[in-house]
Amino acid sequence: MTSVQIARQAPKAQDTSCCTPSGSGPIPSVEKAQKLASLLKALAEPTRLQLLSLVAAHEGGEACVCDLTEPVGLSQPTVSHHLKILVEAGLLTREKRGVWAYYTLVPERVAHIASALGHFTAPQMPTAR
Amino acid sequence: MTSVQIARQAPKAQDTSCCTPSGSGPIPSVEKAQKLASLLKALAEPTRLQLLSLVAAHEGGEACVCDLTEPVGLSQPTVSHHLKILVEAGLLTREKRGVWAYYTLVPERVAHIASALGHFTAPQMPTAR
Repeated sequence: MTSVQIARQAPKAQDTSCCTPSGSGPIPSVEKAQKLASLLKALAEPTRLQLLSLVAAHEGGEACVCDLTEPVGLSQPTVSHHLKILVEAGLLTREKRGVWAYYTLVPERVAHIASALGHFTAPQMPTAR
Repeated sequence: MTSVQIARQAPKAQDTSCCTPSGSGPIPSVEKAQKLASLLKALAEPTRLQLLSLVAAHEGGEACVCDLTEPVGLSQPTVSHHLKILVEAGLLTREKRGVWAYYTLVPERVAHIASALGHFTAPQMPTAR
């Protein structure tokens, strides 16, 4: 009986009043966090941000790699590598026409990232207590 | 004269009509791209996204590390490491009170990222040609 009484004594957690369970609602799943992190990683590189900007600014919103190497001051293979990452993340589309591949911005994808960030950081509705 | 005539012949560039200079306006500077990339890098990690979400969802928009370890299933040193990166990026503020450090979301910083992304990918005004 004594051991039970000891076990029922107020736990140490009383000293850490900050640690009471919060009234937070559901938080985004690990899977959602992984997807968004993967998208953000594709963007989190200065050259890739500049390439996105260059494509968006180009006439008709479309540019080929030959338009992009000089402004960023890098070789075509390096620029193509960055463009590939942006295409894989769905931020650009790629279309081969003749000898050149043309890249177009997917603005909805950028908007999606901004919206997802807002969702991740918006206060959740508290659950009933 | 003949050599001049040859030089004036249509250059090879005619075969690569994609490569005429674009009418794009100013693109964001390398420095701006580096700053935004650095912010995005701080965000581009699943645990850090979850931590931001947990802090935002916590009662009063404030949480201490002791509230955060269990939901993400990581040790306190690991969680503190991620929180430090978020604080350094200006996405969270940290205030020490008693034995605990409390973290609060800086929603303006998240909004700034979303807005900067929009700026980077908005079509620029063409310059006069």
